[in-house]
Amino acid sequence: MHNDATTKILLSESEMPRRWYNLVPDLPTPPPPVLHPGTLQPVGPEDLAPLFPMALIEQEVTSQRYVDIPDAVLDVYRLWRPSPLFRAHRLERALGTPARIYYKYEGVSPAGSHKPNTAVPQAYYNAVAGIRRLTTETGAGQWGTALAFACAQFDIACEVWQVRASYDQKPYRKLMIETFGGLIHPSPSELTAAGRAVLAEHPDSPGSLGIAISEAVEVAAQHADTNYALGSVLNHVLLHQTIIGEEALLQLAKVDAVPDVIVGCTGGGSNFGGLAFPFLREKLAGTMNPVIRAVEPASCPSLTRGVYAYDFGDTAGMTPLMKMHTLGHDFIPDPIHAGGLRYHGMSPLISHVYELGLIEAVAKTQRECFEAGVRFARTEGIVPAPEPTHALAACIEEALRCRDTGEEKVILTALCGHGHLDLPAYGRYLAGDMEDRELSDETLAAATAALPRVPA
Amino acid sequence: MHNDATTKILLSESEMPRRWYNLVPDLPTPPPPVLHPGTLQPVGPEDLAPLFPMALIEQEVTSQRYVDIPDAVLDVYRLWRPSPLFRAHRLERALGTPARIYYKYEGVSPAGSHKPNTAVPQAYYNAVAGIRRLTTETGAGQWGTALAFACAQFDIACEVWQVRASYDQKPYRKLMIETFGGLIHPSPSELTAAGRAVLAEHPDSPGSLGIAISEAVEVAAQHADTNYALGSVLNHVLLHQTIIGEEALLQLAKVDAVPDVIVGCTGGGSNFGGLAFPFLREKLAGTMNPVIRAVEPASCPSLTRGVYAYDFGDTAGMTPLMKMHTLGHDFIPDPIHAGGLRYHGMSPLISHVYELGLIEAVAKTQRECFEAGVRFARTEGIVPAPEPTHALAACIEEALRCRDTGEEKVILTALCGHGHLDLPAYGRYLAGDMEDRELSDETLAAATAALPRVPA
Repeated sequence: MHNDATTKILLSESEMPRRWYNLVPDLPTPPPPVLHPGTLQPVGPEDLAPLFPMALIEQEVTSQRYVDIPDAVLDVYRLWRPSPLFRAHRLERALGTPARIYYKYEGVSPAGSHKPNTAVPQAYYNAVAGIRRLTTETGAGQWGTALAFACAQFDIACEVWQVRASYDQKPYRKLMIETFGGLIHPSPSELTAAGRAVLAEHPDSPGSLGIAISEAVEVAAQHADTNYALGSVLNHVLLHQTIIGEEALLQLAKVDAVPDVIVGCTGGGSNFGGLAFPFLREKLAGTMNPVIRAVEPASCPSLTRGVYAYDFGDTAGMTPLMKMHTLGHDFIPDPIHAGGLRYHGMSPLISHVYELGLIEAVAKTQRECFEAGVRFARTEGIVPAPEPTHALAACIEEALRCRDTGEEKVILTALCGHGHLDLPAYGRYLAGDMEDRELSDETLAAATAALPRVPA
Repeated sequence: MHNDATTKILLSESEMPRRWYNLVPDLPTPPPPVLHPGTLQPVGPEDLAPLFPMALIEQEVTSQRYVDIPDAVLDVYRLWRPSPLFRAHRLERALGTPARIYYKYEGVSPAGSHKPNTAVPQAYYNAVAGIRRLTTETGAGQWGTALAFACAQFDIACEVWQVRASYDQKPYRKLMIETFGGLIHPSPSELTAAGRAVLAEHPDSPGSLGIAISEAVEVAAQHADTNYALGSVLNHVLLHQTIIGEEALLQLAKVDAVPDVIVGCTGGGSNFGGLAFPFLREKLAGTMNPVIRAVEPASCPSLTRGVYAYDFGDTAGMTPLMKMHTLGHDFIPDPIHAGGLRYHGMSPLISHVYELGLIEAVAKTQRECFEAGVRFARTEGIVPAPEPTHALAACIEEALRCRDTGEEKVILTALCGHGHLDLPAYGRYLAGDMEDRELSDETLAAATAALPRVPA
C-alpha cells in the first residue's frame, strides 16, 4: 500500500487511537504541584471546581498512563481524524537534502488546527456535567474557533475573548467563530473588571493571552452554569493532544521510519506536547532515541530565556500558581504574527520535561519563519499558520545540515494548522514590511522582577 | 474497514484513477462544433494554437473515451488526492432525514477547491511545450490560486486578472496567489485594451469573468512565450475534473451505495461536470439511474433562463463562438458572493447534455444558500465556499423531502471548496445584510438581444 512515492500516510477510522496518553507516571520524577495563590499549598479538586467539571479535574491530576476517549468524542473526531501524515517529497527535493521529512497535518480539522482535539472533549465533559456556557481566551483565534465548533456539537454556548492585536490583525477569525455560533469580544474589554483595569492604564493595550484569560475566568467564576476552558498549558489539554503523536507513531511504523529528530512549535505547549509525549514514552522506554526540539519565537522565548519559577497563568493573578518557564505574568509580548505563541509562560509539564533534560529548545525570529512558510507553501501546497512556520524553519535548518553532512535523518514535525486566515501576515512579509524583534535583557529583567514569592 | 459509523471513505494513493474520462464518445449525438467568429466555420487546431499547447488542443477535441494522466501530474495530485468522500452523519441527524448524504470534498487541495485538478495538468502541458508564462482570469480567486500553485510546480510564471468585485470583497485571495508566487491585477485593468475600453465607459465597473478573460487572452495572444489557461467551460477542463467523479464511484462502491440523486453547483460547469460525467457514463450504460441536478444562482441563471445559442466566451468577443446556454456575452452579473458562479455562459458540453435531457437544473437565491452553508458548518465542521452552498441548499431540500416521504435516498454532492477566504460574505449573511436578487426579464432580454448571428 505504501511505497517510495507515497505522499500521504493515512490511517483508517478503525485504526484511530481510542485512548489518550498521560506522560506523568513514566517520568523519573513528578512535576512540582500547582499551588493555591493564597495558602501556597497544593490545590485540591475543590479549588478548581468553580471553573472545570470534575472529569477534567481528575484528568489534570491522574496517575493513570492511559485515559479512554469517550465514544461521543470519537464520533466528532471522525470528522477529521485520523489526520494525515505527509512525506514532504517536494520540499526535500527543493532543499536537496538526503533527510526524510514527515509532517503531521492538523489543518484538516474544523478550526484548521490541532485545537479541536481538546476543545471537543472539554465541551463534552462540561455538557455532561450540566454546564450551559463555556468562556475562553484566544490568541490567533484558533482556540476560540475550535471551542465554538465543539460547543455547537454539544449544544452549549461559547463566549470568547480574543487578544486585541490578533482581533484587529485577523478579522476573518471573528467571522469563523460567529459562523460556528460563538460570541466574541476583543480583549481587554469593558465587560470585566480585569479588562477595565488594563484599559484604565493602557487604553490602547494590544492585549495578551494573560489578560484574556483573566477576563474569561472572571466571567466563568461569576456564573454557576458557566465554566472556563483553556486551550493549552494544563495537563488535561496536553493529554487530549497526545492523539497526534499516537497516530504519528502508527503512521511512521507503516513506512518503517523511526524519527531521529522531532521539532514542534511551542506557545503554551499543547501542540508540541501532543506530538512529542508519545515519542518521549518510547524514548524513556529505550525503543527509540529521537532528539526532541521545541521551537519558540525570539520575541516570546519562555523556555530559552524565561525563569523557571512559580507564576500565575494569567495577568491579573486569578489562577493558581504553576511552576513553569515564565517571562513574568504581566509581560506583554510584542504583537508578532504568530499570535498563538504569545504566552508569557510554558506548560508546567513541558517545563518539567525540559528541566529533566529530555527535550531541547531553540528560538527563531519571524522573518526566518515566514521564509520557511513561503518555501513550504510553494513546494508542498499548504500555506502554514505562522505558529508552525517556527517548526518548519527548524526543520529546514536540520534538513540543510543533513545536506551538508550527507546524513539521511528522519525528521518529524507537526504542521499544527493552515494559515488561510493569517494571510495578511504573509502579505506583510512578501512586501518586506516585517521586522524581527528579540526580547531585550532589560524588558526581561523588568517583567520577571515581580514574580510571586514562593518559599522553596 | 467501513461500517455504519464511518465518516470518511478514503482511497489509498495506489487506488487513485490514472486516467481522465471523456464523456463525448458516449453521448447519443456529439455537441455542436466551436466556430471561428470570422468565418463561422468550425475552428481547427491552428486557430487555438496561439493560446493553448497542442496537447490540450488535442484533448479538447479528442474522441478517445479515456486519456492517461501523466506521471508528473499524478505526482502533484498526490499532495491531496484521492480526496475524501464524507458521509454527512451529523447533518442527516440534524435534518432528521432517512436519506444518506455523501459529499466529495475538494477543499483539501492547495487552492482549497477542485481547481488544481485542471490547473496542474494545464501548467504541465504548457511547461513541456516550452511556455514560460500563463495568463488567466479568476472570479472568487479559486482558479487564480490554483494556477499560481500549479505554475510554481513547473517553474513557469503566472499572471492573473481577478474580477474587481471579488478582488475587493476577498483581499485574502490576492495574498494567497502572491504566496504561491503569482502576479495579480484587478479586472478591468488599465493594462489591456479590453480593460481600458470597459473602464472608459464604466470607470466603476465591478468586472465580470467575461471581461477578465478578454484581458488575459489579449496578453497571451501578444507574447510567443505566453499562453492562456481557462479554469472552466472548455472540454479539456471538464475532462481533467472527471477524476472527482471517478474517485467518488470507487468510494461509494466501498460502502455499497448507489446514488439516487446527484447535485452540484454550476458556474462554468467544471465542478459539476467533474462529479457528474462518470456517473452519466454509468447512467447511459444502464448500470445506475441517478437524477443529476445542476444548481445555479438565481442572479446568474444561464441553464434555467439563458438562451441556447452561439455566443462568445468573453465580453470583448475575442474567443471562438460556442453553442451554450448564455445570458449574453456582455451581461454583467450582479456582484453576488459566489464569484465563481458569475459567468454569463455555461460549458458547451454541459449545455448539450442539458438539451439532451440527461440532467436537470434549478436556481437558488443566495440567502437560502448561506443558510445551508451555516447549517453545514455547524454540523459537519467545514465552512463551505459560497459556490457549493448552492449545491448544499439543493441537497438539504432533497433530504427534507425524504424526511417527509420516508424515502431512504442516497444523495451525492460535491463540496467543491472551503470558504475560509469567503468569511466576509458569511459575516454579511449573519448580520442580516444580504439581499436576494433575481435576474429581471428586462435585463435578460437586453443582454441576449446582442447575440452574434449564426446561420442554423
